[in-house]
Amino acid sequence: MSKRPIIIDTDPGIDDALAIAIALFSEELDVKLITTVAGNVSLDLVTENALKLLKFYEKDVPVAKGCAQPLLAEFVDASDIHGKSGMEGYDFPEPKTELLLQEHAVNAMRRVIMESDEPITIVPIAAMTNIALLFALYPEVKSNIREIVMMGGSVTRGNKGVMSEFNVATDPEAAAMVFNSGVPIVMAGLDVGWKALVMPQDSEEIKKMGKVGDMAYHLFKHYRGGSFNTGLKMYDSCAIAYLLCPELYTVEETYVGVELNGTMTTGCTVVDLKGYLKKKPNAKVCTDIDGEKFREWFKQSISRCI
Amino acid sequence: MSKRPIIIDTDPGIDDALAIAIALFSEELDVKLITTVAGNVSLDLVTENALKLLKFYEKDVPVAKGCAQPLLAEFVDASDIHGKSGMEGYDFPEPKTELLLQEHAVNAMRRVIMESDEPITIVPIAAMTNIALLFALYPEVKSNIREIVMMGGSVTRGNKGVMSEFNVATDPEAAAMVFNSGVPIVMAGLDVGWKALVMPQDSEEIKKMGKVGDMAYHLFKHYRGGSFNTGLKMYDSCAIAYLLCPELYTVEETYVGVELNGTMTTGCTVVDLKGYLKKKPNAKVCTDIDGEKFREWFKQSISRCI
Amino acid sequence: MSKRPIIIDTDPGIDDALAIAIALFSEELDVKLITTVAGNVSLDLVTENALKLLKFYEKDVPVAKGCAQPLLAEFVDASDIHGKSGMEGYDFPEPKTELLLQEHAVNAMRRVIMESDEPITIVPIAAMTNIALLFALYPEVKSNIREIVMMGGSVTRGNKGVMSEFNVATDPEAAAMVFNSGVPIVMAGLDVGWKALVMPQDSEEIKKMGKVGDMAYHLFKHYRGGSFNTGLKMYDSCAIAYLLCPELYTVEETYVGVELNGTMTTGCTVVDLKGYLKKKPNAKVCTDIDGEKFREWFKQSISRCI
Amino acid sequence: MSKRPIIIDTDPGIDDALAIAIALFSEELDVKLITTVAGNVSLDLVTENALKLLKFYEKDVPVAKGCAQPLLAEFVDASDIHGKSGMEGYDFPEPKTELLLQEHAVNAMRRVIMESDEPITIVPIAAMTNIALLFALYPEVKSNIREIVMMGGSVTRGNKGVMSEFNVATDPEAAAMVFNSGVPIVMAGLDVGWKALVMPQDSEEIKKMGKVGDMAYHLFKHYRGGSFNTGLKMYDSCAIAYLLCPELYTVEETYVGVELNGTMTTGCTVVDLKGYLKKKPNAKVCTDIDGEKFREWFKQSISRCI
Repeated sequence: MSKRPIIIDTDPGIDDALAIAIALFSEELDVKLITTVAGNVSLDLVTENALKLLKFYEKDVPVAKGCAQPLLAEFVDASDIHGKSGMEGYDFPEPKTELLLQEHAVNAMRRVIMESDEPITIVPIAAMTNIALLFALYPEVKSNIREIVMMGGSVTRGNKGVMSEFNVATDPEAAAMVFNSGVPIVMAGLDVGWKALVMPQDSEEIKKMGKVGDMAYHLFKHYRGGSFNTGLKMYDSCAIAYLLCPELYTVEETYVGVELNGTMTTGCTVVDLKGYLKKKPNAKVCTDIDGEKFREWFKQSISRCI
Repeated sequence: MSKRPIIIDTDPGIDDALAIAIALFSEELDVKLITTVAGNVSLDLVTENALKLLKFYEKDVPVAKGCAQPLLAEFVDASDIHGKSGMEGYDFPEPKTELLLQEHAVNAMRRVIMESDEPITIVPIAAMTNIALLFALYPEVKSNIREIVMMGGSVTRGNKGVMSEFNVATDPEAAAMVFNSGVPIVMAGLDVGWKALVMPQDSEEIKKMGKVGDMAYHLFKHYRGGSFNTGLKMYDSCAIAYLLCPELYTVEETYVGVELNGTMTTGCTVVDLKGYLKKKPNAKVCTDIDGEKFREWFKQSISRCI
Repeated sequence: MSKRPIIIDTDPGIDDALAIAIALFSEELDVKLITTVAGNVSLDLVTENALKLLKFYEKDVPVAKGCAQPLLAEFVDASDIHGKSGMEGYDFPEPKTELLLQEHAVNAMRRVIMESDEPITIVPIAAMTNIALLFALYPEVKSNIREIVMMGGSVTRGNKGVMSEFNVATDPEAAAMVFNSGVPIVMAGLDVGWKALVMPQDSEEIKKMGKVGDMAYHLFKHYRGGSFNTGLKMYDSCAIAYLLCPELYTVEETYVGVELNGTMTTGCTVVDLKGYLKKKPNAKVCTDIDGEKFREWFKQSISRCI
Repeated sequence: MSKRPIIIDTDPGIDDALAIAIALFSEELDVKLITTVAGNVSLDLVTENALKLLKFYEKDVPVAKGCAQPLLAEFVDASDIHGKSGMEGYDFPEPKTELLLQEHAVNAMRRVIMESDEPITIVPIAAMTNIALLFALYPEVKSNIREIVMMGGSVTRGNKGVMSEFNVATDPEAAAMVFNSGVPIVMAGLDVGWKALVMPQDSEEIKKMGKVGDMAYHLFKHYRGGSFNTGLKMYDSCAIAYLLCPELYTVEETYVGVELNGTMTTGCTVVDLKGYLKKKPNAKVCTDIDGEKFREWFKQSISRCI
């Protein structure tokens, strides 16, 4: 079986680091490109983090730097969660700077997509500024995209605002552009992220899984200030898990709108499961996950990262 | 112990009919006034329904007619749920028209509140148009109101729109005025309503509970087209249950805003449990209910309606 | 000819004081009631001002106190324009408190309208909180209202916000409710108010017109800090002038919406002269005024205030 | 004196055709690039029109095709004004297709700006989708842009919606991104466009001004269905006139916001001349123009197009 070609759009970020590891070491995925965007921390830091991760994982995937700012929203990072550097808690090697392309992420994505024989899957695990610009600038890429499998959004409540999830709320206009783009999209949001947990005992097991496990263990100790008892949420790995293990999920095909005009609800993903809005479906939404199986899958996946 | 004086603001409505029964036959509540407002069906129909219920229950509580329209929103009823008359399925006696006051609901509420020695509890189980006008017109009543215990709103998703509950979404501006009023407010919304179920076997039991039980049984058969297997939601009884049996609930004190500006989220109650909005609490929100105990309480309560 | 019965809803205010004078001394108008609402200054102050004016003018018109707050908007007064008391600059007599009704303005309006043989004209020269509540509570009054002739709104730009006029922006939801009410409405807004000027030389003439002229002269000296060279805008008198001298105006029948959702434009009156919104006309809008003739009319009107 | 290097971003369009002519034949301007964007008619048509104009004017300026869609708004063209082709009324030669670059307009703009020794002036006389994307993708260009001189927006009312001008309202999010970009911007909007008139007698004069005059004459006969008596508005030439003849204008430095959330006012340029919003100025706004001098300038400019 040929590997499935993907582009990961990311803002590492602790949970990004693990999601990227699983993708890079998977035998079923071919990571063609990693693109970066401001989110968990600044664009320069997340790009540096991506290059550090590639050095650490000893994988040669090209990296392209994307947008340093949301389209219209004011940029607010999440360094309170991920630490000042975005990957606090582990002493990474120097970034492998020779992997950094001179091209803008949007142009690199276009090139990779247009050159690929097989349709590409885009995996945004960050704000979707780059993806929105890609479609605005180069609509011709749409026909060679298999689907977008994103981490973001929520069927219910949020984690950046009361009703808005971090990645979508960081650039709501970009998210709206992507949901309106006509490209098939799978949304793995908080509804599954909140159940995709690593528990303290898992972390101890992971610690023994070679250097990636050891790194993960140390990052986990710093994630969210190390408050661990109720589990650490492996948001971004949910997108990768969907690619590798879709049977973990309950999925519903539905319309998803992004609220842009609310005083208190901007960035809310309005997931119209009951059809109130009378719109055609534009997304597959992961409404549930088997949390126990996810934990097993996650640990097994990390154990393969060698 | 003296009975607790309450005013019920309602739009009967099948689940209203049961909530009113429980309140009227309770030994702990003194229903001073019933006010009506357009909602489940038109103002004329809900007022007639209230008067029919009083005749049927043989209780002499004055009724005052309120608003026929939301403040700004376009009025859309719920006759698809409650039937054309609002209480489809049972052959009620003629309304007891002599109970109908000449006063407007807002004026009747003011009079009852101002004349009461003991602070009044207001129990809105409908759109809050009347209550909003009461506070706008007569802010002096606030000091003699003990609290508002309302059925409406949601911590998560909605039942009129994707993110909006029927009573709040019917008149969002009125709801916002009430939440902004400074009066203590308890919100029992969909989060508890969805778990406050009557199951088919309960309905069979209820059928045998005298004439009120028989009536309830027949209404239930028409509620939501009689689709019954997953349970019928006794939304409005949740407000009465809070008065009589608050230990059923998990309650959190928090800020609740009503979204008025969203393209797809207007009427969403933004329940800020995590403090994202940095506002002072203005409500106690029922975030959970013990569904099994509620069922027992409900059946016991109906059995006492004689 | 019988006098035309009117109710003035007001928040005196310097320009209110003159508009009220002209109405009270007119042989064509019968001021049945003056109602007050928070606006230029607080409700207590504007009510006191209304009672002082009646004492000063030696006219016995009943006064009813209305709302102290907009429906939803935060109240911000205009004491920077009208002075701390709202009528700074003249030493008025004590208020004629015996004219103050015990009824709420909304109830007094209802009574006067329902009791009148002839349809009443309502003249709001302030935020329309009272009028909105009147229609919400007592829609039956609509059939005995001849029309609303209001000062407020703008075809172009604003004077409280970039695109919003003071009276409408003080309570935008109330204004929207009035424009949506179905009652015939004449809007005399900034477009005519900005041209309804009293110039320094007019003020000198007015000074000699008896005690009302003398009072006007002294108020004018304090209005807007006395900056006078480009003329003082007699906004509120524009509504009275429309009643007495409609030939001063260019009027267009059109749809007027009130923007409630804008981030920077809430309170903007969207006057759809070109039919972009495809809505039925709901108002006559004064788009222009003959400024020279207005000045003559104004001075003549003040000269008759004896 | 060296010529001032400019990029024209356009959607020809009848008034675009004349503005482009004046720029191309001016001795003070060096048109480095023409970029196209959907607006008056579709992207394909406006691009073809640009190439036809260059053939007709016998000028070899490279053309780059930009965006076919606004970022988020639904695209609605103005073929009711400009005719089906966008330049109805004259039999143009075939487009000079060899001038069409393979690069996307956004990339072509970036290249031209980065390669220029002298800072470039961007002249958008269309929706600002391309410019918004340029800044989002390549913020590094900002430091080599002298200023943006745009046709669009309004200090008062609109011509696409009640309060919104066509170019801004076609892509309001893009306009907001440009006004927020930090790049110096001059806004020549409806306030000057409405006074930048060509009258019937002017058209007759222009007819005799060689082949460009003859072409203009015939386009004018089709513009807005040929309704001519009150003058034809040369909107887009206002931006060129600002470059060549700034003394025609009254200009105020102020903050301009673009309303994105209004129900009826989205696309309104909120020009805060009085400082209500307490924001730093981000634009120079042309608030007035000497219409007579503009007419003279326009005719003289067309006469030089040979």
